[in-house]
Amino acid sequence: MSSTVSVDGVVQRWEDLRLQDFPQGFFFGAGFFTTFRIDAGQPRFLARHLARVRSSLDAFPTAVRAPAPALLHEDAVREALRRCLTADAAMGPRFTGVGKLAVSDGHVLCTFRPFPAELEALHREGRELDGVEAGAYRRAERTVNHKGLAYFRQHALLPRLPVLTNESAEVCELPTANLFVQLDGALVTPPQSAPCLPGIARAVLLAMASVDGLPVVERVLPLADLSRAQACFYSNAVALAVGVPRLTGRELPDSLRLAERARAALEARAVREG
Amino acid sequence: MSSTVSVDGVVQRWEDLRLQDFPQGFFFGAGFFTTFRIDAGQPRFLARHLARVRSSLDAFPTAVRAPAPALLHEDAVREALRRCLTADAAMGPRFTGVGKLAVSDGHVLCTFRPFPAELEALHREGRELDGVEAGAYRRAERTVNHKGLAYFRQHALLPRLPVLTNESAEVCELPTANLFVQLDGALVTPPQSAPCLPGIARAVLLAMASVDGLPVVERVLPLADLSRAQACFYSNAVALAVGVPRLTGRELPDSLRLAERARAALEARAVREG
Repeated sequence: MSSTVSVDGVVQRWEDLRLQDFPQGFFFGAGFFTTFRIDAGQPRFLARHLARVRSSLDAFPTAVRAPAPALLHEDAVREALRRCLTADAAMGPRFTGVGKLAVSDGHVLCTFRPFPAELEALHREGRELDGVEAGAYRRAERTVNHKGLAYFRQHALLPRLPVLTNESAEVCELPTANLFVQLDGALVTPPQSAPCLPGIARAVLLAMASVDGLPVVERVLPLADLSRAQACFYSNAVALAVGVPRLTGRELPDSLRLAERARAALEARAVREG
Repeated sequence: MSSTVSVDGVVQRWEDLRLQDFPQGFFFGAGFFTTFRIDAGQPRFLARHLARVRSSLDAFPTAVRAPAPALLHEDAVREALRRCLTADAAMGPRFTGVGKLAVSDGHVLCTFRPFPAELEALHREGRELDGVEAGAYRRAERTVNHKGLAYFRQHALLPRLPVLTNESAEVCELPTANLFVQLDGALVTPPQSAPCLPGIARAVLLAMASVDGLPVVERVLPLADLSRAQACFYSNAVALAVGVPRLTGRELPDSLRLAERARAALEARAVREG
């Protein structure tokens, strides 16, 4: 992580931040965060990321101390990011990498890191998904719809990257990614009530309505239906789309091409949304 | 909270601690904590609290960076607590209040605060429980068995204090407390697989095997059975036992007396365990 960060719009050094300014975030995970791409200095889909953080704060008005609303305005955050990049010679105003915005205890913290080293290989080769964490979530479980600092459940499962299902054996998501499968002539992703995180890349794909000629639809997705999938990718705001060449035991050679199309569409849209 | 704390056994000021030493605890809730009574300088049931923290670290060896084992030995923690109390004139070696031990990012943090202002009233008058959070947990959900820094679900429900049930409408626990009901001639508490936190006061009551002449048993507790309860209390390591004079709509006047007996038994045992 870069040592240049911002707190409430003010550029600071990471090593100077005090734990006492973030106690509820630390002790209880009482806060939210979001992770986004920065391409040549441009934070991607920032308005959408901030809207999700605001809606999470609105959903838990007493459990998390919200920052002053002005601190989460798009222009204010964009300016804070710009100041950080400019202040840090190792990043610079045309930095490309990952931005993270965390909100807790009335504060807005922005941090930066390079893209994960394996990102290119993930795009080129995809990632096999062979595990299932059955009944990981229950239907309509509400905290899953919010990207909270209490992210331990997902964090602990990250190395294995299992498909997370609910008590009715319906697919929910992956730890830190949404799932899309080509099925019955559509590109299917589980509904928020599965539950899953309303991921930003997921929302953009749904808004585009079609990818590679396939209609994008939100639909309850029984785990058993994965055996009929023709292709699969997962999405998140950093990798955008990663092909799944093997899904719970079945080879899906078309996945890499589908993921590439989804990625290209997301990249084009990111540039347009600015 | 007191400004005197310890990190890895060294007395420090809370305001001097840096966020950068606890990043995984903050960003992902990747850590564990435990809260315990300190009576006249004596941390209560400390060995049990530390054993639970160690078992949580063992259960998630890759997701949480564990501290050096010596830092969690009972003698080491006892000595760290003693040093803090002695160093802080406002507390002193015979401090009575709440201690908290949090573990993340390879560190052990101990903090102190007074008893909550409402504790005496809680003991005197008990606390009505009228809400149910249905299906809050799923059976055998494993993170619930560990007191993690990712405590947001429970933290967000704390003001309402609903009874948390699983997908089969069985009682699990309260946010931050275990539940005991007098039923069919026994004092019944749900099993860990409900799931619930293996609370320290709960473990001690189970180890005592009987309270006020009632055998203490772990048993699946259907929510519907609460309508047959003759008395009820909830337990945690700070309040020990709090009577529930009204449980989901029914008056239970015997609860206060039962809670008082449980509290007295826990206090006696605390002194004995040292």
